[in-house]
Amino acid sequence: MSILIKNGLVVYGEDLNVVNADVLIEGNRIAKVAKNIREGADTVIDASGRVVSPGFVNLHTHSPMGLLRGLADDLPLMEWLEKHIWPREAKLTREAIKAGAYLGALEMIKTGTTAFLDMYFHMDAVGEAVLESGLRGYLGYGMIDLGDPERTEKEVKEALREMREIEKLESDRIQFVFGPHAPYTCSLALLKEVRKLADEHGKLITIHVSETMSEVGRIQERYGKSPVVLLDDIGFLGKDVIIAHGVWLDSRDVQILARNGVTVAHNPGSNMKLASGVMPIGKLLNAGVNIGLGTDGSASNNNLDMLEEMKLAALLHKVHNLDPTIADASTVFRMATQNGARALNLKAGVIKEGYLADIAVIDFNRPHLRPINNVVSHLVYSANGNDVETTIVDGRILMLDGEVLTLDEEKVLEKAEKVVESLL
Amino acid sequence: MSILIKNGLVVYGEDLNVVNADVLIEGNRIAKVAKNIREGADTVIDASGRVVSPGFVNLHTHSPMGLLRGLADDLPLMEWLEKHIWPREAKLTREAIKAGAYLGALEMIKTGTTAFLDMYFHMDAVGEAVLESGLRGYLGYGMIDLGDPERTEKEVKEALREMREIEKLESDRIQFVFGPHAPYTCSLALLKEVRKLADEHGKLITIHVSETMSEVGRIQERYGKSPVVLLDDIGFLGKDVIIAHGVWLDSRDVQILARNGVTVAHNPGSNMKLASGVMPIGKLLNAGVNIGLGTDGSASNNNLDMLEEMKLAALLHKVHNLDPTIADASTVFRMATQNGARALNLKAGVIKEGYLADIAVIDFNRPHLRPINNVVSHLVYSANGNDVETTIVDGRILMLDGEVLTLDEEKVLEKAEKVVESLL
Repeated sequence: MSILIKNGLVVYGEDLNVVNADVLIEGNRIAKVAKNIREGADTVIDASGRVVSPGFVNLHTHSPMGLLRGLADDLPLMEWLEKHIWPREAKLTREAIKAGAYLGALEMIKTGTTAFLDMYFHMDAVGEAVLESGLRGYLGYGMIDLGDPERTEKEVKEALREMREIEKLESDRIQFVFGPHAPYTCSLALLKEVRKLADEHGKLITIHVSETMSEVGRIQERYGKSPVVLLDDIGFLGKDVIIAHGVWLDSRDVQILARNGVTVAHNPGSNMKLASGVMPIGKLLNAGVNIGLGTDGSASNNNLDMLEEMKLAALLHKVHNLDPTIADASTVFRMATQNGARALNLKAGVIKEGYLADIAVIDFNRPHLRPINNVVSHLVYSANGNDVETTIVDGRILMLDGEVLTLDEEKVLEKAEKVVESLL
Repeated sequence: MSILIKNGLVVYGEDLNVVNADVLIEGNRIAKVAKNIREGADTVIDASGRVVSPGFVNLHTHSPMGLLRGLADDLPLMEWLEKHIWPREAKLTREAIKAGAYLGALEMIKTGTTAFLDMYFHMDAVGEAVLESGLRGYLGYGMIDLGDPERTEKEVKEALREMREIEKLESDRIQFVFGPHAPYTCSLALLKEVRKLADEHGKLITIHVSETMSEVGRIQERYGKSPVVLLDDIGFLGKDVIIAHGVWLDSRDVQILARNGVTVAHNPGSNMKLASGVMPIGKLLNAGVNIGLGTDGSASNNNLDMLEEMKLAALLHKVHNLDPTIADASTVFRMATQNGARALNLKAGVIKEGYLADIAVIDFNRPHLRPINNVVSHLVYSANGNDVETTIVDGRILMLDGEVLTLDEEKVLEKAEKVVESLL
């Protein structure tokens, strides 16, 4: 299988140089980027007036939560969780979660996301949806033991079961990830066990860390240290760890993350909507910490649009720091693409020979994207997910000219609508 | 002329009650909202799976600035203005501004904006574009005299000339507005003259006030008072005044605005991108000040998408105040619709019998807007301007199923692209 994308404005390489060129995909890799490629291909896509961008990597989400979108907003965090989210989640069956996963996958394909790091329940069901969708899914089962040894054992068992089920799917695109929920919901025993299992099975770990002030306070009370210091002290941190949020990090925390090569998945939209706070982006960038971008779940965003998320990231840090130069367009674009890919050990997130063919083609023949004065600026500040026209993952076209080829859109929407009735 | 919109989810009345109903438009007014309307109509629009929303009122923009979109970002304010914006604006001819106005009008129609308050130069040229587009434009010539009496006279003359030209267009949809730029760029003599002329001609006034900290400092140094106190002291304020930004307002300023019935046009996107600061929304709401929503120009946003702007408003205030209950979805939705209409003395911004037929039909058959758990929440937190399918202004269809009927889209984009070359 080969695909030739003709005449697009290509966001090329790590440096995001915009060049008018063709992109040749052979198998699941980018084979060539050059002007006037003469090789033939099985499929030719005309990208004139379009931008050929690396696909987006959503580094933190709970993809089935689209089901709960808009069910409760504008509430204090604990009221939101206890009265609205948790009671509904308790009713979520495997079937419901699968319907939510299809909805999430459909939304991601439509908005140019090509890989995502997920944390939820019944991840083997999510894996089946991801397999059919054609996306890359890194799927973490969210483990919570609340310090109860019986639950610790149960959670480890369930994680390993889901891991084996996901491995049965036999797809390079779908990887199991360990997903202990957070230091305040997991015992040290569970966290240590996860670290051991991740080493043993060669899997990544993702965990919520320092999302809210109150959570940091609870850890401080319980252990007399910050969540990051706690994780460092038990040898939990490493290059294979992606912490979500990292809002309330102090300078020492940042140094520890840098020293251990930990990635932070930044979720500006969710942090704003839940009023969690603002991640210290300047400190993290200065320390050289790898920062990726995520949307979080659709109950706290309320969508999975990575183009919108880039704008939120850039704007939030400027006003918070009263500094318009911070979080510039290129920095934020890298967070949403190559930095996320790096965290997942994926040779993706960059349009360049030899990289995985994970690509979004974005229609710039639209008034809000013209004149084409600056492609990367337009992607960050002017575009949104609806501008994506074609999505390619692993050398396979998942959406062409707005039509999703791998999923039955109508059926996915109907099913999601039906499933949510059982939660109300 | 009559239009019947069938089977939509209608955001009805000031209270935003969502009802499944038909909407009958006769002439330029909403004649009836009810289930199963049996009257025939010249045009019937099937709105199943769609939301029928009041059109959006962009209460502060510089519509031709789409030309400069992305030409300079991520820069300190003065460097941005002095090195990038002003030198380009100095090259803007009447023809260029008209091309920019067409681009802006096209973008607004496509994203469901039905009325806007503009401030720029050559507003008679903008008026011609607005006339053809079918939008409602409130057009202010931006007056700046920098304390030079000769310039005061020249600016007043130019404003009155543009007013007369705009009146020659003889359209209720297009109104001249006085637009003195700001207290720090206009002499007291000019401001007083504007107040007098606005009374004489029965026109609205719009002016930038307290956008940046440094601007407030300059006024404090020059006059020993805040910009709002200054304007109050010269009798400038009133129900017909719309101040843009209002970021750096103290409690006394807020009381003065409330007492005078002044409207504030809030521009969260621009205030974030330029790192200007955060408008004190809580104080303004408590004092009962009317707050509308604007995108500002596309050089500092970088689009005219009012749906995106609603999300920015809701999210910014939550994180800034560390309070997730502030700026809830309904409050923000009203800012973007009925509050803006009220400021413009327009019986619009509400879907209700007798109101002007300014309507946006939004396609909810999209994964990021499903399940339809909460229509207003979805409009604020999940949707974006690209979801708008049909735009109606003054009982006339400007866009139907994504196709703009009043403007030649391709021609507008080409012309904008060509014009910008002369500015580089």
